[in-house]
Amino acid sequence: MDNERLEKLLNDVKTGKLSVKEAVDALAVFPFVELGFARVDRHREIRCGFPEVIFCEGKEPSQVAEIAARILETSDRLLATRADSAIFSAVKKIAPDAFYEEKARVVAVDRTRTPKRGLVGVVSAGTLDIPVAEEARLTCEIMGSRVETFYDIGVAGLHRLLSHVEELRKARSLVVVAGMEGALASVVGGVTSVPVVAVPTSVGYGASFGGLAALLSMLNSCAAGVSVVNIDNGFGGGYVASLINLAVEGGR
Amino acid sequence: MDNERLEKLLNDVKTGKLSVKEAVDALAVFPFVELGFARVDRHREIRCGFPEVIFCEGKEPSQVAEIAARILETSDRLLATRADSAIFSAVKKIAPDAFYEEKARVVAVDRTRTPKRGLVGVVSAGTLDIPVAEEARLTCEIMGSRVETFYDIGVAGLHRLLSHVEELRKARSLVVVAGMEGALASVVGGVTSVPVVAVPTSVGYGASFGGLAALLSMLNSCAAGVSVVNIDNGFGGGYVASLINLAVEGGR
Amino acid sequence: MDNERLEKLLNDVKTGKLSVKEAVDALAVFPFVELGFARVDRHREIRCGFPEVIFCEGKEPSQVAEIAARILETSDRLLATRADSAIFSAVKKIAPDAFYEEKARVVAVDRTRTPKRGLVGVVSAGTLDIPVAEEARLTCEIMGSRVETFYDIGVAGLHRLLSHVEELRKARSLVVVAGMEGALASVVGGVTSVPVVAVPTSVGYGASFGGLAALLSMLNSCAAGVSVVNIDNGFGGGYVASLINLAVEGGR
Amino acid sequence: MDNERLEKLLNDVKTGKLSVKEAVDALAVFPFVELGFARVDRHREIRCGFPEVIFCEGKEPSQVAEIAARILETSDRLLATRADSAIFSAVKKIAPDAFYEEKARVVAVDRTRTPKRGLVGVVSAGTLDIPVAEEARLTCEIMGSRVETFYDIGVAGLHRLLSHVEELRKARSLVVVAGMEGALASVVGGVTSVPVVAVPTSVGYGASFGGLAALLSMLNSCAAGVSVVNIDNGFGGGYVASLINLAVEGGR
Amino acid sequence: MDNERLEKLLNDVKTGKLSVKEAVDALAVFPFVELGFARVDRHREIRCGFPEVIFCEGKEPSQVAEIAARILETSDRLLATRADSAIFSAVKKIAPDAFYEEKARVVAVDRTRTPKRGLVGVVSAGTLDIPVAEEARLTCEIMGSRVETFYDIGVAGLHRLLSHVEELRKARSLVVVAGMEGALASVVGGVTSVPVVAVPTSVGYGASFGGLAALLSMLNSCAAGVSVVNIDNGFGGGYVASLINLAVEGGR
Amino acid sequence: MDNERLEKLLNDVKTGKLSVKEAVDALAVFPFVELGFARVDRHREIRCGFPEVIFCEGKEPSQVAEIAARILETSDRLLATRADSAIFSAVKKIAPDAFYEEKARVVAVDRTRTPKRGLVGVVSAGTLDIPVAEEARLTCEIMGSRVETFYDIGVAGLHRLLSHVEELRKARSLVVVAGMEGALASVVGGVTSVPVVAVPTSVGYGASFGGLAALLSMLNSCAAGVSVVNIDNGFGGGYVASLINLAVEGGR
Amino acid sequence: MDNERLEKLLNDVKTGKLSVKEAVDALAVFPFVELGFARVDRHREIRCGFPEVIFCEGKEPSQVAEIAARILETSDRLLATRADSAIFSAVKKIAPDAFYEEKARVVAVDRTRTPKRGLVGVVSAGTLDIPVAEEARLTCEIMGSRVETFYDIGVAGLHRLLSHVEELRKARSLVVVAGMEGALASVVGGVTSVPVVAVPTSVGYGASFGGLAALLSMLNSCAAGVSVVNIDNGFGGGYVASLINLAVEGGR
Amino acid sequence: MDNERLEKLLNDVKTGKLSVKEAVDALAVFPFVELGFARVDRHREIRCGFPEVIFCEGKEPSQVAEIAARILETSDRLLATRADSAIFSAVKKIAPDAFYEEKARVVAVDRTRTPKRGLVGVVSAGTLDIPVAEEARLTCEIMGSRVETFYDIGVAGLHRLLSHVEELRKARSLVVVAGMEGALASVVGGVTSVPVVAVPTSVGYGASFGGLAALLSMLNSCAAGVSVVNIDNGFGGGYVASLINLAVEGGR
Repeated sequence: MDNERLEKLLNDVKTGKLSVKEAVDALAVFPFVELGFARVDRHREIRCGFPEVIFCEGKEPSQVAEIAARILETSDRLLATRADSAIFSAVKKIAPDAFYEEKARVVAVDRTRTPKRGLVGVVSAGTLDIPVAEEARLTCEIMGSRVETFYDIGVAGLHRLLSHVEELRKARSLVVVAGMEGALASVVGGVTSVPVVAVPTSVGYGASFGGLAALLSMLNSCAAGVSVVNIDNGFGGGYVASLINLAVEGGR
Repeated sequence: MDNERLEKLLNDVKTGKLSVKEAVDALAVFPFVELGFARVDRHREIRCGFPEVIFCEGKEPSQVAEIAARILETSDRLLATRADSAIFSAVKKIAPDAFYEEKARVVAVDRTRTPKRGLVGVVSAGTLDIPVAEEARLTCEIMGSRVETFYDIGVAGLHRLLSHVEELRKARSLVVVAGMEGALASVVGGVTSVPVVAVPTSVGYGASFGGLAALLSMLNSCAAGVSVVNIDNGFGGGYVASLINLAVEGGR
Repeated sequence: MDNERLEKLLNDVKTGKLSVKEAVDALAVFPFVELGFARVDRHREIRCGFPEVIFCEGKEPSQVAEIAARILETSDRLLATRADSAIFSAVKKIAPDAFYEEKARVVAVDRTRTPKRGLVGVVSAGTLDIPVAEEARLTCEIMGSRVETFYDIGVAGLHRLLSHVEELRKARSLVVVAGMEGALASVVGGVTSVPVVAVPTSVGYGASFGGLAALLSMLNSCAAGVSVVNIDNGFGGGYVASLINLAVEGGR
Repeated sequence: MDNERLEKLLNDVKTGKLSVKEAVDALAVFPFVELGFARVDRHREIRCGFPEVIFCEGKEPSQVAEIAARILETSDRLLATRADSAIFSAVKKIAPDAFYEEKARVVAVDRTRTPKRGLVGVVSAGTLDIPVAEEARLTCEIMGSRVETFYDIGVAGLHRLLSHVEELRKARSLVVVAGMEGALASVVGGVTSVPVVAVPTSVGYGASFGGLAALLSMLNSCAAGVSVVNIDNGFGGGYVASLINLAVEGGR
Repeated sequence: MDNERLEKLLNDVKTGKLSVKEAVDALAVFPFVELGFARVDRHREIRCGFPEVIFCEGKEPSQVAEIAARILETSDRLLATRADSAIFSAVKKIAPDAFYEEKARVVAVDRTRTPKRGLVGVVSAGTLDIPVAEEARLTCEIMGSRVETFYDIGVAGLHRLLSHVEELRKARSLVVVAGMEGALASVVGGVTSVPVVAVPTSVGYGASFGGLAALLSMLNSCAAGVSVVNIDNGFGGGYVASLINLAVEGGR
Repeated sequence: MDNERLEKLLNDVKTGKLSVKEAVDALAVFPFVELGFARVDRHREIRCGFPEVIFCEGKEPSQVAEIAARILETSDRLLATRADSAIFSAVKKIAPDAFYEEKARVVAVDRTRTPKRGLVGVVSAGTLDIPVAEEARLTCEIMGSRVETFYDIGVAGLHRLLSHVEELRKARSLVVVAGMEGALASVVGGVTSVPVVAVPTSVGYGASFGGLAALLSMLNSCAAGVSVVNIDNGFGGGYVASLINLAVEGGR
Repeated sequence: MDNERLEKLLNDVKTGKLSVKEAVDALAVFPFVELGFARVDRHREIRCGFPEVIFCEGKEPSQVAEIAARILETSDRLLATRADSAIFSAVKKIAPDAFYEEKARVVAVDRTRTPKRGLVGVVSAGTLDIPVAEEARLTCEIMGSRVETFYDIGVAGLHRLLSHVEELRKARSLVVVAGMEGALASVVGGVTSVPVVAVPTSVGYGASFGGLAALLSMLNSCAAGVSVVNIDNGFGGGYVASLINLAVEGGR
Repeated sequence: MDNERLEKLLNDVKTGKLSVKEAVDALAVFPFVELGFARVDRHREIRCGFPEVIFCEGKEPSQVAEIAARILETSDRLLATRADSAIFSAVKKIAPDAFYEEKARVVAVDRTRTPKRGLVGVVSAGTLDIPVAEEARLTCEIMGSRVETFYDIGVAGLHRLLSHVEELRKARSLVVVAGMEGALASVVGGVTSVPVVAVPTSVGYGASFGGLAALLSMLNSCAAGVSVVNIDNGFGGGYVASLINLAVEGGR
């Protein structure tokens, strides 16, 4: 029930064409969401802090480009994850200012001019975790958060991590990306009081069972303040961390 | 937004106290569900074919009795599953016509006077599956379906099953309850064209892993026409089968 | 024991070549199924509502074509799932009126002239779930059911789903296809009283474990009226939903 | 290396008892943490936002009381989870102002006088999820957050949830507690832009596998902004949500 | 269709009351199993080598006694597994010659007078595996097989096993009962050419996962000639081994 | 300690070169297996009923050919499973009488002249199970067993299975090969008294989890007399069944 | 074949009663292990570094006492794990010098007079891990190793662990006992070069799945030098660590 | 805080530029690890017995070469596992003395001149386990341990294993590499008193579940003295075994 139809109904009440009783009945049988949600939807980006993100795996470049075009009609920002160069080419045609970060496998558009705010720390354990960490970083940045990265500071070389503790404590939120045994989340959670969003990765072999070991490890973290997103979900980790960072910055 | 408030708003429009524009805005900011769902909710039982069912496990008898009382205010029927005699005593106090079927672990009230319609067949494999099967049977009956039961006809004694094939084919829908390897669902599905709702049970030991073996077996049934509900979920199986039976009978 | 041999035996009884006692013994030792099932089998399609379906994965195009030819000798309809264009070419040679729906990966023949009846709603959550949903849709249509599809209405954008509630309620049965967390089945089951056949898909990554997350979610649905088929089993979901729809329509 | 010893060493340098070279060597061989962490540790509560919490399961009442006494020496607050009345009695002896919330299974002390700040929403699906939700609520309150609770608003009765959407959107963070299929986290995440900390519970049976179904469902949530803690970990969920709320309030 | 009715039908054919055509039709519509299986069923024990066995877990003593009475009407032997002394008392009332082997948790009756034949070797690894091994032994003996037991010869003390190799090789079939890592099946399979029926037990802790470790180990045995039954299924292991032994002895 | 050395030692005792005490010591320190096993080993094929089988997956054709050559030096028979045409070419060079059964993926040599004995029935459910069934068949035949195959008789079309019951009962042992829900093993086990060796296959998708569903189903078979080998292990199933068949035939 | 019989045989060779040929044959048919292992067995404790340990769970006190008596006939040491006070009472009767460590659930006897040697460090994360750690400590001590314990130094309070690094580095081997996410093993492994034997415990809840999370975490440790034993297997961890320690000390 | 800065600070104390109080404060706020760990790090190879190892899977050849170059600046040894010939080519450019062992998939550099010491036995079950075993062997050798290999001595041919028992007992530590049911670890652990480091491999199919069967089997080994590393982790197994061997040799 769009506004026009609603206005007409109310006008009919006003002019006596429709009795109040009839109007109540009419409103009762309208699909309930047309009214409330339609309004919300025109403000979708504001409501959710971010327009729709495109998960590219399994989608054709043309499909992605089409969805991207639709998003960019109403938004200044676009994020397409698990993208490859073919998808970049397709998106570039409809958005010449799109850019592609190969390591993060992300195609993005950012037409906002506002400076990045706050601070999210993105921490990762090993070289192979970096693509997921980069996906988290880019998600944060597109959402408007300032990011500092701390890569390759796994617990096997604890001193590398510990030498950055003071910097980690300055962040509003932390994304901790780790595969194998995922102990990094517990260790980072233990030395900071910042909310830690842990992202297990599928890095590992054998009994890592595609990231299950890191996932379970992180869920069982003995350090409070750690919550977890899906395996390899750099976007999800960055999204949550950025939500927190921006809320603290007061910029919702 | 209840009807009274809605009437008042519309009256204000009618009398000019509220402009149409103001009324549109007012309606837009109301929580969207107040309107549509409120109506639906007064018809909750009709909408869902059944009032709320009470899952008793983990609930105090007094809690169950309280919920039961609330349901019976607006409904002629009540179903409380996984009940014991303490729960029965508590419910009996607020509903003297409640009855308790011990084997099914069900406490129920049925104040409808309409005869049972259609036919649901409830099939079970072993003696130990009977409580789950009985829960399914009672669910069907309380919902208004006629039920025939075929117990202890597992695949290890195939002739017992096969001797009932003609009767099984007469049902509108079948609930097949089986633990261990759950093969009964496939066999029944293979000799009838009736929709089969399979209920795996936790009957078994060792590698039955609490019903997982039967569950996976049923999900992988090579016979089309079989769908599955949760392990030991006799209520769920009976509910789906009864929905189908009543729909066929035209009695929604 | 085919009919000829049975007739001969009975004639021998009639003419006294065989005593009644001898005939009883002879009948007792015959394989018990020859008699009963043979009859049934000539009516196989009627009994099961549908001829045999071909699951193409792992089969050679020539194998599929051969089976297809055999089915079409006695049936007006054919359904081959998980098919590719090579299989289509092979089937087309033996059935020039076969058609191929690429998105659904289905090759089908439909020589029936009867109009589609009733209504099955096929609901899916995301773009990547569509192939499974399409397999369900085609299965329903080949079986003679009318289908309406509601694609891309996952719970993350709840308003899209809610705006279709009235239409969903008009269906005789619903197929709900969803990957990731599979919450769509619960939500749809919660707002309708129609039997919901839930089809989990392997869409997702990480801890979706190939569709396990959606499968478990659907099996544990807090909404009654939901039953589940195997992961990615669009055919199975469509088959069950269509069985229900056609039964309600009275057309068995 | 405590401060006294460090002062002595530096005095020795100043007075020439120790050459600079010798002092460098001496400092190098000290256990590295004595220095940095000692300082931090005296500020442990500030660093982590909360003193140590006691997980009571498997601990003797006397053990718990002893740890509690040690914590209360340096802190105004105490939280003991999974407690029973025996533990409460033991703690009461060392802290007469301790209180016991039976439903939440929490024994707590709160000697702070500061008013609760901000807003955390604690949402739960079913009656049986309430103990976990209450543990989350109490954790938030002891940490200094204001809490509003929204209980028994599972997705099977979607309208109950939707009628609270506006209130949910006002919270700084949300704890969503749900067992069975855990779909509530996705639905709440889809209608708000607040960070959602999802707590799966072991409520359910059969294929819920002790909360695994809800856990996987939440990890695979199609709604961004959802992160997850361990099954039944009400404390963990409340802790993370409160960290976020307090950070937004600027009160770290 | 029992014999009386069949005789009547054939007499009607003989006397011309029924045409051959009518008789064919009549036979075709009879439930197909009445005929074939009825015969078989009168010979049930012969067909399966053993009357029905009663799995007592979860059954009331009176239920077990009732089933036992029914079995003993047509059989000289009875086997009730997972029995306790209450079940023994109940069975003893209907079968005074019943005996109870506590370690094996078996109540049995054996009224056959024939001597035990052939040889089944029952091998077990640890003290805690003995109840399962004893269940296997008794199953074999009740079925008529001679048994030799080799207990407590796990692979950690390989020499104990190896010192019995010659005796093991004399058996017609072997039951190997082992928990923990279940390596015994492979080792026994590697030094004999006798069919080995492996019975994993739930003995163990931690990562034995209730017998899963032993089960998987046995299924992956690098020694050919090993097949496996369910965890703790001493009856199943003994049954298969005895079937083989008796077949070799020619005494089916 | 080979025989020569043993003879020398004994001669030394005889001639007094070595005292009895010295000889006892000498024998005690010899690796214990040299003596016993060496003898056995010369009769390896007799001991195990079959020479070593080659599992080709992951091995180079040249490796396989080399092992094959070594085996054929002392044996009349060879079995190489999971072979492809490249392996066949390599083996053919060292054994021109080798043959390749493509469907079974087996390369074999059989230089024995003795006729096949006894009867093993190999039963399979679906078209896709046939490669595993064929591996079982060939294993049996190379071992000297006569085989009859019953393919494509799954439980979805129960009559096809039931029409072969009499023939199945004539076998000495049965191999039942089935994927998906694996119910065939229970059904066959329920209508025969022959030992059934069940081989689950990885045929299926989704919740078949690579054959896990069929495996668990078979392990939980409600029909006694069923034992199970590893998923897709046609060789193992055939080996056990053939061991039984040959033992019954007396031909060990 | 015991020594007496062997001496007799050799004497017969010496005296000519037996030809060398006959003796070779006789030796060849003896069970091969009698000879070699018998020797070994007399030195069983030396061979394995430790007499048999008794795992008490599931055993009767009298059974344990009986086994204990047998062990103490030939050994100065006894270790019975998972013991309770009833078992202690029973063992005390046959060994008055037995002692019981309740926390470790160990009953032990140590009649050796030799001082403890070397150094094993036993590290544990939380209070609830201490029983398992104590079992490890006692195992080491009974085996003759000196032990230092480092309890309650989990990674959530990293400084506690780091302040002990120098001491940890002095050990010959380390047992690291941890539940929940088991990160302690990685952290300890990362700051020392001593072999770390990791013991996961079942401490935790929810997604710790009875210790699975800690087990997988430890198996995937990014720190080299970490190996793992079964969940809660304090004995196993202590045994391996002590083996290493004693080997380094040269005292095998 | 590097040494230069520390020296300057101490000089300032000495010269009175900085008061002792100020110096204490300055030292307290320095990142705590700079001091202690920096020293350690210059001795990293000594501390851990080995420089960093490169796990090549998922890394570009150029990445590996770059890391290799960095390691070789400060170390005489390099180990890159899971390498292929492309990686070898890249490493060879920066280290002409690098060598490639194809079977072990290892690229290594060894510029140490010291002879190999002690003895590690590397035992493997089947042909397909050899790559993992070779990775273990090379790891040991690069670390300075002497290695003897015992390949293809699985438990199915027990005599092959037993004939090497005396040699196995001479090793300081053993690496046991086995797939399928992994029983070899238990058997080797049962006949030796040497620490056994078990390496499960993913060799197998079906219910080996990628090495899970062997892993669980080894973790549940009934032989004490067995600890386990990750599936296919030949490096980890070799590393632990070599640590032990070198410690015994006194050569740390």
